[in-house]
Amino acid sequence: MSVRDGCILVTGGAGYVGSHALVVLLEAGYSVVVLDNLSNSTFGSVTRVQEMTGQSIPTYNCDLCDKKGVEDIFSKHKISGVIHFASLKAVGMSVEIPLVYYRQNLVGTINLLDVMKEHGVYNFIFSSSATVYGDPKYLPYDEKHPTGSCTNPYGRTKYFIECILRDLCAAEKEWNIIILRYFNPAGAHPSGIIGEAPIGDPHNLMPNIAQVATGKRKEVLVLGGDYDTPDGTGVRDYLHVVDLASGHIEALKKLDEKCGLKTYNLGTGKPHSVLEMIKAFEKTCGKKIPYRIVERRAGDLPTFYADPSLAHKELNWKAERSLQHMCEDLWRWQSMNPNNYN
Amino acid sequence: MSVRDGCILVTGGAGYVGSHALVVLLEAGYSVVVLDNLSNSTFGSVTRVQEMTGQSIPTYNCDLCDKKGVEDIFSKHKISGVIHFASLKAVGMSVEIPLVYYRQNLVGTINLLDVMKEHGVYNFIFSSSATVYGDPKYLPYDEKHPTGSCTNPYGRTKYFIECILRDLCAAEKEWNIIILRYFNPAGAHPSGIIGEAPIGDPHNLMPNIAQVATGKRKEVLVLGGDYDTPDGTGVRDYLHVVDLASGHIEALKKLDEKCGLKTYNLGTGKPHSVLEMIKAFEKTCGKKIPYRIVERRAGDLPTFYADPSLAHKELNWKAERSLQHMCEDLWRWQSMNPNNYN
Repeated sequence: MSVRDGCILVTGGAGYVGSHALVVLLEAGYSVVVLDNLSNSTFGSVTRVQEMTGQSIPTYNCDLCDKKGVEDIFSKHKISGVIHFASLKAVGMSVEIPLVYYRQNLVGTINLLDVMKEHGVYNFIFSSSATVYGDPKYLPYDEKHPTGSCTNPYGRTKYFIECILRDLCAAEKEWNIIILRYFNPAGAHPSGIIGEAPIGDPHNLMPNIAQVATGKRKEVLVLGGDYDTPDGTGVRDYLHVVDLASGHIEALKKLDEKCGLKTYNLGTGKPHSVLEMIKAFEKTCGKKIPYRIVERRAGDLPTFYADPSLAHKELNWKAERSLQHMCEDLWRWQSMNPNNYN
Repeated sequence: MSVRDGCILVTGGAGYVGSHALVVLLEAGYSVVVLDNLSNSTFGSVTRVQEMTGQSIPTYNCDLCDKKGVEDIFSKHKISGVIHFASLKAVGMSVEIPLVYYRQNLVGTINLLDVMKEHGVYNFIFSSSATVYGDPKYLPYDEKHPTGSCTNPYGRTKYFIECILRDLCAAEKEWNIIILRYFNPAGAHPSGIIGEAPIGDPHNLMPNIAQVATGKRKEVLVLGGDYDTPDGTGVRDYLHVVDLASGHIEALKKLDEKCGLKTYNLGTGKPHSVLEMIKAFEKTCGKKIPYRIVERRAGDLPTFYADPSLAHKELNWKAERSLQHMCEDLWRWQSMNPNNYN
């Protein structure tokens, strides 16, 4: 079955990356169905996407651990491929409640794969993470870098799922699976209509910076200032969320080549430190962003960034938007929506 | 809760190691409850154990993937600890149907741990395997040997569960968990009343040898004769199944010391080649065992064996029965029960 023969099920479609993917999918002419359990999102994002695009999106409040619920969605819609964003993703929480993380991410994914198979759907894109690489043997990470030395349960769920997918592809030739290893998504849709809207305290740097800029928070807590990096703060590979979303369009095309299992980094290859991100955002919003350097977080690495050349070569994808775009778009989103989707 | 405060749930209690564990548990004065989905066993084994011991064993045909079914067992019985033998374990099948293996072993275990937690049961013994060590960096394997470079999905399920258990113990101090890494169980109960009774073709060497001795099979297929070992055939650490079962009694005692997470090899440290095992069995049964050397099996290692000294030091356990005992007891079981429990 070609991915164009039916619609794309987007799990976690109400989330940050998922909602931006909906926009680019609809723009590229795909039909989509959204599944989300709303554990860290609301359907406000999907409502906005419908308003932006003038298209109606079938949307299900369903948890992947409810296999019967997932089967119902596959029975109601002709699904030709799945983009699997849905995941618990807070590193710190995964250390505190590992069993919840293992159930949600592993059992959820195994259910999804089983239901896909029962319905003859073999096109799958998985949201993995650079965290699977663990302690760098060399940088930038390319896709051949060893994986598995993850420092927390969240990372292990991603690594375990990658292993499951590789074993599955080796055993059953029907499957076409693309593993996308995300670096650090940032920014928002340039319209300012959708963006990152975490429930509760944001776990990532950029929403924290933006909330300090709007006055919602007093200061940015910088986790570690004594790393072996140019300014002592952690260095990451931030990429614009719309670039990241676009990578999934290219991956869908690749699936139609009957690609078997492929793995690609999605990053820019141009890393920035925490302090550089703060400075860049100050320049964009014209305000001083107070910050305070605190203790390192256990398991955090000093520096990592992508070699994104394989995605360029095989998917014809590369990140096109600059750090300035990320800051401007995030600031527009945050200014227009100080209370996110509420 | 002390493990003596209630009964021990034995998952996979109808299986080879499980049924031998039942005998030693009952002999040591523990009460037991058996859960088994009978995917590779029958309750004939449990019936025999009841006859041997004169004790009645509550027995449930239940699959760990049926969480509600597991909850019912915990509601009906006061369970103080769990020995988790239940697992799909055929290496070759795991390569062919990995998703089934991941569901059964991972989802089953996650369900079990969740139900234990809901019922305040935090004493757990997990049947892991030497396969988690993968390609030897050195031999004998001790418990500090690196893990995770498994060569097949079966091994990965064991490794993944070990990781889940370590994360769980790190997060929740109530848990006492002992991971037992089995080497190669062989033999049968010396009474000849219970033994290994695989459904369909046996996957392990010793039942194959025994079935050739009884005339049920024509010859033993030796998987590889060109390994870098003294006689070219694979070298393994075979231990008597009653010794292995006894290790679980010592582990239960250790749990009551509030040990947190501990990991122990259960092996003899004295490896034997396939041809040595055939010769030893020939001597025991007084018959010639025809064999034929065929291709290696993908993923099999030339040699591995245990350093069992940590279990000796901390559990006061060591394997006491010789290779001759393994052969004699297996031969007694196979002669008395040519059709296993039927």
